[in-house]
Amino acid sequence: MPKKPYELFYWPGIPGRGEYVRLALEEAGAPYVDVAREREGGMEEMTALLEGEGTQHPSFAPPFLRDGRVVVGQVAAILFYLGPRLGLAPKSESGALWTHQIELTISDLVAEAHDVHHPVGVGLYYEDQKKEALRRAEEFRTARIPKFLDYFESILAANGATEAKPRLVGKSLTYADISLFHTVDGLKYAFPKATGRLLKSRPLVASLHETVKKRPRIKAYLESERRQPFNESDIFRHYPELDK
Amino acid sequence: MPKKPYELFYWPGIPGRGEYVRLALEEAGAPYVDVAREREGGMEEMTALLEGEGTQHPSFAPPFLRDGRVVVGQVAAILFYLGPRLGLAPKSESGALWTHQIELTISDLVAEAHDVHHPVGVGLYYEDQKKEALRRAEEFRTARIPKFLDYFESILAANGATEAKPRLVGKSLTYADISLFHTVDGLKYAFPKATGRLLKSRPLVASLHETVKKRPRIKAYLESERRQPFNESDIFRHYPELDK
Repeated sequence: MPKKPYELFYWPGIPGRGEYVRLALEEAGAPYVDVAREREGGMEEMTALLEGEGTQHPSFAPPFLRDGRVVVGQVAAILFYLGPRLGLAPKSESGALWTHQIELTISDLVAEAHDVHHPVGVGLYYEDQKKEALRRAEEFRTARIPKFLDYFESILAANGATEAKPRLVGKSLTYADISLFHTVDGLKYAFPKATGRLLKSRPLVASLHETVKKRPRIKAYLESERRQPFNESDIFRHYPELDK
Repeated sequence: MPKKPYELFYWPGIPGRGEYVRLALEEAGAPYVDVAREREGGMEEMTALLEGEGTQHPSFAPPFLRDGRVVVGQVAAILFYLGPRLGLAPKSESGALWTHQIELTISDLVAEAHDVHHPVGVGLYYEDQKKEALRRAEEFRTARIPKFLDYFESILAANGATEAKPRLVGKSLTYADISLFHTVDGLKYAFPKATGRLLKSRPLVASLHETVKKRPRIKAYLESERRQPFNESDIFRHYPELDK
C-alpha cells in the first residue's frame, strides 16, 4: 500500500517557515498535501488543530505536520522527524543531532531576519516601526549576517566541503543543506546588495546555494505553481531602504 | 566505573541560557562541571571549542555540552540529548518529539523576552534603545506573554495536569517542566507586575512554577552558590519602566 501523503499545515500566500518543510518534501519526492492551500476547508482544519481539537499535541503556531497519528510542530522538530524518513539526515544519533543543531542555528538566523522589519513588535505594521527597522537592519547587515555566514562557511570547510560538493554534514545532502539554501535565497531577496557582497568571500555557502537550487526536483519545484514567491508579508522582505 | 562528569560550557556571571541545562542536570543529580566558571583556563577552553579547535561540531554560541566524544550546542538540542539519559523525557519517539517541541516553543518565548530590552540590536546597550524597548515591552506584556502562557496552560490541561501535579508531558517530570519553571521564574523577575497578574488566571502554569521550585534538588541548587542570580546583563532583566 502506498504511503499516505504527509499533511503540511501552514498559512497560504507566503513561503514563510512552511517552505523549509516543503523543500525537504519536494527534494525527497515525498507525497504531501499543503492542506490550507489545497484542501477545501483546509484553513478551518488548521485552526481546529491549533486549538487542540483532534490532537493531543497542538502547535503554538504553524507550520506543523501530520503523519497519520503523529502531529509535530516547530520547523526544526518537523525536519528532525522527517529527516531519516526522507533520507535527508544521517542515521547515527550523533549525526542526526549535529544536523538538527545546525538547523536550529539556521532558525535563529531566520528569526533575526524577521525581526529586522519588526523590531518593535509583531502586532505593528512595518510602517509604524520603520525608523527602528533602519537601525536594526544596519546591525543585521554589518554584524549578524556576516557572523552567521562565517559560521556556516567554517563548518562546511571543516566537513571537507568543496565548491563542487558543498555539504554541511557528511557526504550526502541533508535537510540542513536545503534549509541553508533557502535562507540564503531569502537573504538574497531581502538584502540583495549586502548578501551579494558578503557571499563573495564565503564561496562554500555561495556554492551550496547555487548547487541546491539546480537539483532537479528543487528546480522543478521552484518553477512550478506550488512555489509561492517571496513577498512583503513574509519573513524575508525586500525593503530597499534596509539594504546597502 | 562512575560516569565521567558532563561538561557544560557557558558564560560565567549570568544564569542565561546555560541555566536550562544546569537545572536539568541538577534535578537529575548528574555530575557536571561548569567549565568556564569552575575550571582553570575554562574560558580559553570554551573559546577554542567555539572556534572549532578539538571538535568537528563547534557551536554558534554557548551553551554547549561535552559528553565524552559528543559535543552538542543549542539548548533544545542539548536537552533532547540529555533527556533520556537523565530520565527527564519519555522514551517513545512521539513523546520525546513532543517534549522537544514544547522546549522549542519555550525557547521562542525566551528569545522574545530577550528582545524586549534589545529590540534594535544585540550590539547596542539598553540605554541606546530604551524608547524602542518601551514600545516593545508593551506588546510583550499585553499580547505575547499571555499568548504563550495560554498555550502552556492549555497543553497542561489537555495532559490532565492538576495543580497538585502539573506536568506538560505524561505523568513524570520532564526537562520541559523544568524549563517552563525557569522561564516563568525569569518573567516574574523581569516583569513582576505583569507576570503576577497574568499567572492568577493560569493556575496550572503557576502551580508548575511553585512545585518545581520546591523539588528537593532544585531547591537545594537554588539555595546554593552554584546558582547565579538574575541580573541586568542577562536575558531576563528587571527594568521597572518596562513593567506595568
